[in-house]
Amino acid sequence: MNDTRMGQVVLERFSSDVLRGNAPGDPHVRTVAIYLPPSHAAEPARRFPVCYVLSGFTGRGTMLLNDGPWSPPLDRRMDALIAGGAGEMILVMPDCFTRYGGSQYLDSTATGRYEQHLIAELVPWVDERYRTRAAREHRGIAGKSSGGYGALIQAMRHPGVFGAVASHSGDVYFDYCYRADVPKLCSALQTAGGLKPWLEKFEAALQKKHDDFTVLNMVGMAACYSPNPATPPFGIDLPCDLETGAFREDVWRRWLEWDPLNVLASKADALRSMELVYLDCGTKDEWHLHHGARLFVRRLRELGIAHEHQEFDDGHMNVAYRYDVSLPKLAAALGA
Amino acid sequence: MNDTRMGQVVLERFSSDVLRGNAPGDPHVRTVAIYLPPSHAAEPARRFPVCYVLSGFTGRGTMLLNDGPWSPPLDRRMDALIAGGAGEMILVMPDCFTRYGGSQYLDSTATGRYEQHLIAELVPWVDERYRTRAAREHRGIAGKSSGGYGALIQAMRHPGVFGAVASHSGDVYFDYCYRADVPKLCSALQTAGGLKPWLEKFEAALQKKHDDFTVLNMVGMAACYSPNPATPPFGIDLPCDLETGAFREDVWRRWLEWDPLNVLASKADALRSMELVYLDCGTKDEWHLHHGARLFVRRLRELGIAHEHQEFDDGHMNVAYRYDVSLPKLAAALGA
Amino acid sequence: MNDTRMGQVVLERFSSDVLRGNAPGDPHVRTVAIYLPPSHAAEPARRFPVCYVLSGFTGRGTMLLNDGPWSPPLDRRMDALIAGGAGEMILVMPDCFTRYGGSQYLDSTATGRYEQHLIAELVPWVDERYRTRAAREHRGIAGKSSGGYGALIQAMRHPGVFGAVASHSGDVYFDYCYRADVPKLCSALQTAGGLKPWLEKFEAALQKKHDDFTVLNMVGMAACYSPNPATPPFGIDLPCDLETGAFREDVWRRWLEWDPLNVLASKADALRSMELVYLDCGTKDEWHLHHGARLFVRRLRELGIAHEHQEFDDGHMNVAYRYDVSLPKLAAALGA
Amino acid sequence: MNDTRMGQVVLERFSSDVLRGNAPGDPHVRTVAIYLPPSHAAEPARRFPVCYVLSGFTGRGTMLLNDGPWSPPLDRRMDALIAGGAGEMILVMPDCFTRYGGSQYLDSTATGRYEQHLIAELVPWVDERYRTRAAREHRGIAGKSSGGYGALIQAMRHPGVFGAVASHSGDVYFDYCYRADVPKLCSALQTAGGLKPWLEKFEAALQKKHDDFTVLNMVGMAACYSPNPATPPFGIDLPCDLETGAFREDVWRRWLEWDPLNVLASKADALRSMELVYLDCGTKDEWHLHHGARLFVRRLRELGIAHEHQEFDDGHMNVAYRYDVSLPKLAAALGA
Repeated sequence: MNDTRMGQVVLERFSSDVLRGNAPGDPHVRTVAIYLPPSHAAEPARRFPVCYVLSGFTGRGTMLLNDGPWSPPLDRRMDALIAGGAGEMILVMPDCFTRYGGSQYLDSTATGRYEQHLIAELVPWVDERYRTRAAREHRGIAGKSSGGYGALIQAMRHPGVFGAVASHSGDVYFDYCYRADVPKLCSALQTAGGLKPWLEKFEAALQKKHDDFTVLNMVGMAACYSPNPATPPFGIDLPCDLETGAFREDVWRRWLEWDPLNVLASKADALRSMELVYLDCGTKDEWHLHHGARLFVRRLRELGIAHEHQEFDDGHMNVAYRYDVSLPKLAAALGA
Repeated sequence: MNDTRMGQVVLERFSSDVLRGNAPGDPHVRTVAIYLPPSHAAEPARRFPVCYVLSGFTGRGTMLLNDGPWSPPLDRRMDALIAGGAGEMILVMPDCFTRYGGSQYLDSTATGRYEQHLIAELVPWVDERYRTRAAREHRGIAGKSSGGYGALIQAMRHPGVFGAVASHSGDVYFDYCYRADVPKLCSALQTAGGLKPWLEKFEAALQKKHDDFTVLNMVGMAACYSPNPATPPFGIDLPCDLETGAFREDVWRRWLEWDPLNVLASKADALRSMELVYLDCGTKDEWHLHHGARLFVRRLRELGIAHEHQEFDDGHMNVAYRYDVSLPKLAAALGA
Repeated sequence: MNDTRMGQVVLERFSSDVLRGNAPGDPHVRTVAIYLPPSHAAEPARRFPVCYVLSGFTGRGTMLLNDGPWSPPLDRRMDALIAGGAGEMILVMPDCFTRYGGSQYLDSTATGRYEQHLIAELVPWVDERYRTRAAREHRGIAGKSSGGYGALIQAMRHPGVFGAVASHSGDVYFDYCYRADVPKLCSALQTAGGLKPWLEKFEAALQKKHDDFTVLNMVGMAACYSPNPATPPFGIDLPCDLETGAFREDVWRRWLEWDPLNVLASKADALRSMELVYLDCGTKDEWHLHHGARLFVRRLRELGIAHEHQEFDDGHMNVAYRYDVSLPKLAAALGA
Repeated sequence: MNDTRMGQVVLERFSSDVLRGNAPGDPHVRTVAIYLPPSHAAEPARRFPVCYVLSGFTGRGTMLLNDGPWSPPLDRRMDALIAGGAGEMILVMPDCFTRYGGSQYLDSTATGRYEQHLIAELVPWVDERYRTRAAREHRGIAGKSSGGYGALIQAMRHPGVFGAVASHSGDVYFDYCYRADVPKLCSALQTAGGLKPWLEKFEAALQKKHDDFTVLNMVGMAACYSPNPATPPFGIDLPCDLETGAFREDVWRRWLEWDPLNVLASKADALRSMELVYLDCGTKDEWHLHHGARLFVRRLRELGIAHEHQEFDDGHMNVAYRYDVSLPKLAAALGA
């Protein structure tokens, strides 16, 4: 450990124009965490590839830097990987947290324009302020869970911006990963008397419960996938009818449009253009995302898109150690 | 308690013709438990209404007679209800258990002809051997969980046989109660290497695990709702593709045909002819069956079908105490 | 299965003199279940060894006859063992259930004189009414959990009555199996406002919860091990002070006097006189009883007492299949 | 939020002399996190009270700064409290983590001299480098769980150093909080083949399991309370005999010497000298620490020691929000 050269973390306050006035009233000034690799200070003229690392649901960039007893913060993890031979790159950890727990890194009238924030604001701003190699060939995107979803979706939607992607346990195959929780969402909101009282009670609770997160996750996904400005007060269409309790096929179809499995059809060329398409998932994923990854990879294969797919013997939570696999690959793919 | 007059339980061995040679190799000779109310012995000429009580998944009639520290066997429960003023009736507790945990009281090439067994064999046999009032007006059907499903379905399909029905926490709205477990089924069978090795391992295990029952339940439902003699070795189409992991919409549609919500459309008159249509469900049902009950009741209302719907503050398991509510109502409806 | 000769179960109502007027007001008339092996009817002059089978906490004899989907009732289990070559013996399943969930088969002013009921009432009554070989050499005792405790304790205390013993997952080493639950007992009773309101609430609850059983178990053990007629209203000294919350060493010492590990010191000769001393326990026993069994067996070894000790890879619950191991050994030891 | 003046966090690398060469080989250079309140920068001559905040088991100071979706890092929490009127003080967050998960902030041959590190190294070093009011009247100590234990113990042992103490859910009454886990410790280590293989397997596991932490906690407590240089290879006496499985009373007595309930007898004057003795605990504490707090407070009352005791409706985990109660009280007590 003593010989490990340490990179530097910078916490920048970024005032976003596109997030200003967002519907839930979340702050438009965000803390963006930026990791600069060890040589960044030592070699003042050198430029580095950059990788955007997207946190999962209920997370924001700074949480990737949280210390753990047996799991290092992402900066220490990257230091160790570089010490072990990985190429040096800058890591950018944006804050796309919302009142509903996250944004899926999409634009939504119910949450805010987080895709715009990421692509149109953060990327150029980072390229301007830091010594990046400012081209898609040297810019990657990665993430876990909702961050893995975001990475995959943004790579598909913005091949001009990103040239490599790694998705850990990303949200894929909504039929398996979300649909089972619709009746739980329905029961919880009905019991609370609606989304508003539920949300207020959730926010007031000092101790959030496990079941609360199941509900919040579904509320959050609805806010991202099926916003509807005409539905007061939150502008969110839910995938169930709180009056009758029934599943809403019409809303669900809107969700499915955002399933990477369906998005892929029109975005195959984007992924084909990537230097690296990496996916992995634990085979005990509690949201069954290993099935989603397999189905996605199966279609990649059918489409003749080069990719790497790994599985590991674990569940969904606490698998930051998978970055030890993806980050060196990304660094190599991005020319680090 | 001392003054409670006690009924009598007879355990009969019934050799079924329709179950002989069933696909899974389950016995065609079954133990049928029959409760005769206190006055049956005292008044040798008197005839009684009869109610068929269907056990839930993994159950058979004799298990309704299991003793519990704070939950009496069904015969003692009925004794107490009669002592409290309920009308006297005969209870018939059939055994429709199968290798797959149950039969849903339906005919299936994969399990056996349990509907035939119940309707065409047991009913006339009981009427012949016991002093029943052998008419639909005096014959009811009840059950809990899969037994509640069976009661509701059989009442809809055989209004000429049954004149009153009570369904406790019955399987209704398959979208909510089964679909969430498809990915679990898929993962478990894939891990085991297929249905055959999974089933053999399950059967060999001295201690069955909680997750095993989730899988068995889905296997059982597939055996009942989507049998397919052309699918070796079990003749069961599963709602997922074990090769790709994907959900099978075609199989699922076959399941949905058996959802009471969908069956109701063509069987409204049957329920309309009942003296009693009683449904209840706990509002914390782990399979979300309270939503199913509500949606079913909503349609009954739309169809102008008289019914009684109760909810109670509990989950799905260990709610035999709900028979304390339904059995007196059934007895009254059946003229006891 | 078809060829298995079936024994017969007789349910007798026994009016106990020693249980009459017991403190908790439990019934003194009990249902005793008696299994008569297949040859009992066929050979009217033949006499059989007899084994008393003691149920666990919250159980009574009739529950040993409960049917289960993959676990047969004890009578069917014994039939199968006999069909497989085991000697034929009579099984007696007493009811020593109490308001507090059990009696540990001991005399206690707080529960009743269950040891007397078993030894002084049931044994002679059974010998009188059934064709037993009425001598200690042909009379055994077995049980699981609290029943395994009862079997071991009664064998030690009554070597003139029993000549062989089998204890499955019996309560041994109270330091490990009970002590951990003292703070849970204390918190629950304090929260309820004392033992009386806790008990009344427990009894009124339609659905008993998992934590309730932890508390009841401790109340029950206190009723058995540390009764105190001077403590109103239940005559039970608890192992914690409900006022301060502190552990009560004085009460605990009274419990320890009933720990088989401590009883053994003065009862070694009793066990030495047994034809069979059999103990087993699962190595994942949730109450850590495998440690108790090991320590007990270690002392047996030090004392030069012949015994058989088995371990199996399972927990504490649903291990009735272990009777498949012990009952044939008992039958052989008892000369069947 | 916008108007909240923000303090500053400094992460210092501290090279400890007393930790050098510690037995488990843990680093002697540690990161100490120091929070400087908003006025520290604005008023360069002003001195501030200082409070040492001790993290719980498996924690270190930097983890108190971990960001959470609905629970702010300690620095942001303190900023908000100051904005709400609390006095400004410096917070020092030491790193006393060890291979065994923690140190209880004690000296131990098995872990290291963490009490010396805290008292003899950190306190003077902080006073030298930062503008503290360097007197016991202005120096407090606080913590949660094992940190609450450390705060209470260090306040009792070093009244010349600390003048106020707050203990949240601190380890008190070892009979209730630790003893129940001895059999679990024993089973786990026996299964693994001893402490060494258990520890190596634990450390190698990418995903730590819930049960692992129970075991590690007990190993850690043994390392702190019953070290024994004569016990190879770790110098730790365990509270159970891995050979027989039995509880070790001799080792347990050594643990009890460190129970605050027992320490208090000789340290009453120390606590009597404090400006603030604050304890709180959730009434659903999973380690039953509310009982410990109540018993401790009862003795404080008997000894006539002023104190404040609160209870709250929650368990043991994720209760950092309790610092919102204690930190303003500490600031006031320390003259901020």
